[in-house]
Amino acid sequence: MMREIGRAARGAALVLGQAPRAQKDQALHAAAAALRADRAAILAANERDRQAAAPGLTAAMADRLRLDEARIEAMARGLEEIAALEDPIGGVLADWRRPNGMRIQRVRVPIGVIGIIYESRPNVTADAGGLCLKSGNAVILRGGSESLESNRAIHACLERGLEAAGLPASAIQLVPTADRAAVGCLLADMTEYVDVIVPRGGKALIERVQREARVPVIGHLEGICHVYVDRAADPAMARRIVLNAKMRRTGICGAAETLLVDRAGAPAQLAPLVRMLLDAGCEVRGDADCQRVDARVVPATEADWNAEYLDAIIAVRVVDGLEAAIQHIGAHGSQHTDCIVTEDAAAAERFLARVDSAIVLHNASTQFADGGEFGMGAEIGISTDKLHARGPVGVEQLTSYKYLVRGTGQTRD
Amino acid sequence: MMREIGRAARGAALVLGQAPRAQKDQALHAAAAALRADRAAILAANERDRQAAAPGLTAAMADRLRLDEARIEAMARGLEEIAALEDPIGGVLADWRRPNGMRIQRVRVPIGVIGIIYESRPNVTADAGGLCLKSGNAVILRGGSESLESNRAIHACLERGLEAAGLPASAIQLVPTADRAAVGCLLADMTEYVDVIVPRGGKALIERVQREARVPVIGHLEGICHVYVDRAADPAMARRIVLNAKMRRTGICGAAETLLVDRAGAPAQLAPLVRMLLDAGCEVRGDADCQRVDARVVPATEADWNAEYLDAIIAVRVVDGLEAAIQHIGAHGSQHTDCIVTEDAAAAERFLARVDSAIVLHNASTQFADGGEFGMGAEIGISTDKLHARGPVGVEQLTSYKYLVRGTGQTRD
Repeated sequence: MMREIGRAARGAALVLGQAPRAQKDQALHAAAAALRADRAAILAANERDRQAAAPGLTAAMADRLRLDEARIEAMARGLEEIAALEDPIGGVLADWRRPNGMRIQRVRVPIGVIGIIYESRPNVTADAGGLCLKSGNAVILRGGSESLESNRAIHACLERGLEAAGLPASAIQLVPTADRAAVGCLLADMTEYVDVIVPRGGKALIERVQREARVPVIGHLEGICHVYVDRAADPAMARRIVLNAKMRRTGICGAAETLLVDRAGAPAQLAPLVRMLLDAGCEVRGDADCQRVDARVVPATEADWNAEYLDAIIAVRVVDGLEAAIQHIGAHGSQHTDCIVTEDAAAAERFLARVDSAIVLHNASTQFADGGEFGMGAEIGISTDKLHARGPVGVEQLTSYKYLVRGTGQTRD
Repeated sequence: MMREIGRAARGAALVLGQAPRAQKDQALHAAAAALRADRAAILAANERDRQAAAPGLTAAMADRLRLDEARIEAMARGLEEIAALEDPIGGVLADWRRPNGMRIQRVRVPIGVIGIIYESRPNVTADAGGLCLKSGNAVILRGGSESLESNRAIHACLERGLEAAGLPASAIQLVPTADRAAVGCLLADMTEYVDVIVPRGGKALIERVQREARVPVIGHLEGICHVYVDRAADPAMARRIVLNAKMRRTGICGAAETLLVDRAGAPAQLAPLVRMLLDAGCEVRGDADCQRVDARVVPATEADWNAEYLDAIIAVRVVDGLEAAIQHIGAHGSQHTDCIVTEDAAAAERFLARVDSAIVLHNASTQFADGGEFGMGAEIGISTDKLHARGPVGVEQLTSYKYLVRGTGQTRD
């Protein structure tokens, strides 16, 4: 079955890669309309998923699995927003002429077939399907088994969108089984049909993908994001940024997990920051300096410097200045998103240059780590890889390029 | 030992990634000078390699292993040419401002640590070392075991260049053993130290890399390059391009391996093309139509359509027009470099759009598949991957990017 899916995807990719923008956008709009028209059926399917899965789910998992009218409307609007994005395909990235008269262009083309493996979040079915469609790629979706019924109902709408626009329904396929062997097959046994795997999920999935994948992967590791409050930080700005970076939403990958405070600024800055976090309902796990500030601070262990809590918990450490902060982030970070708060322009530039993360911010919250906030449109996630795509993975990052060479009979000497 | 090499490379990468252009170029010039000064020692080391390896080598392998004064001078000049290239690091790829006032830049950064696995071609030691140095990456070189002594002698010159410029010698390391286990270690056991593997070699190496690698790979598959002579081809141009594409140098990856001739043009074009190739000393393996043209044509088997000869052999097939040519290339090509010869602009544009190869040419020889010929400078090879780098892999393709965000205290709503 999986190889049949792969073969169909490869065939659909040939069609989709040549499809004009209007046709792809028509499919996206028709799929959005189908989602709205089918919302009762989608909610019913979701109800079946939730009842079957309920006993085994944490509250966070249950929330991710749950659909309601507003979330279905958000999916539909998401597809319409993707339709409004520029078509990345066919764009000329570079164009030059050689001394022998040959004209060379580098033009954007789809990657081909993308495999997306994600947890039980039904909205990813629509988002990822839409992004791949817009970028001219065929996609094989493999969502978490708890969301299979919901995914099927959403996927049926995407198929109807494709058909309404005269595009092959197999451009967006859903693996129609909860069998976990299908994941292994996608990762390792379909190298001729799958060009890249995009895993979206927790550590266990990422580790499985790294272990088993025989095709390239655009990885999304955890976000162990830091805010470093420099000696020259504006105290009010530091508090505003730290509170937002940690507490605005604790469950997203751009949420801050560790606060580093410059020792030179700690006498003035540390206590207000720590008390602010505690008062906001955040658990603070601090080093010895931090523990002295407030009795509510829990002692941090070594594991806390490497933790992605995705919760109202923060690790706090006093460091010996900028270099020590950069060292800490290099040793414990996940190359996702890190921030310095300072009024010292030289310190900021040094931090921006030296911290080797996908996104490095000066005087702005780590919660801006998001394709939409960057003005890049919808994204499939934030890549912590350094190859191919780093940072937000939107429609442009789901493309490749090729060289077109136009000559008049040139041969090489 | 391998992990020690990895650790040292990671440390060196931090320094090299911040090194200014002048310092990197100074190291390249000093290494070139060292190669010239040490040429007697390099030739002696190469002589030892060749004597030890001689019994097991084919003529082509022996030629690749052999160094002489001219080849050493070419390596030295190659390093100087790399020094003359623009520094890719720090370049601003995009720069925009958000409505909330945040300024976002996408800037080029090194990848980090690159592992290069190559066959017994000592010149790759200098070329690959120089390209990685210029692009700010640390590199771990693992050349073919037959060339170990030559590689050591060349590598010593690269180290002297680094030291002369005050850069860490461990920025360019050579695996100092012929033990094949070192390759497995580089591929799978050093994921925290190696960011990407670039394999340069034959099918056996590529297959091993695909099977074992646990880190991203920039792949270089074979070049099964096609020339399609369309019905509307200019006959003289077709002959010139076919002869050059096949016979200029038969051992490079951009050499044509298959000639497709449009059936509508075959009565006029096929015989002159086939006889020209035969007369030039090329073995022609043809389909039934081709065999009728000349008694010297050998019958082609199915395997010939998938063969990378890298030799004076060509497969020739008559196809039913443009669509059939595109289909054949899709089924049998390696997405490397393919060419159409035609005076029909619409046919050319269709071929350029539909053939999914790294390089697609109209009326120009496939032998132009080369970074230098593209004006991109020295390259480490032609990538047939669609992720990260496609086509020539030069200093720009050996980089990643990161986002720098400069704010004034922005927080997310």
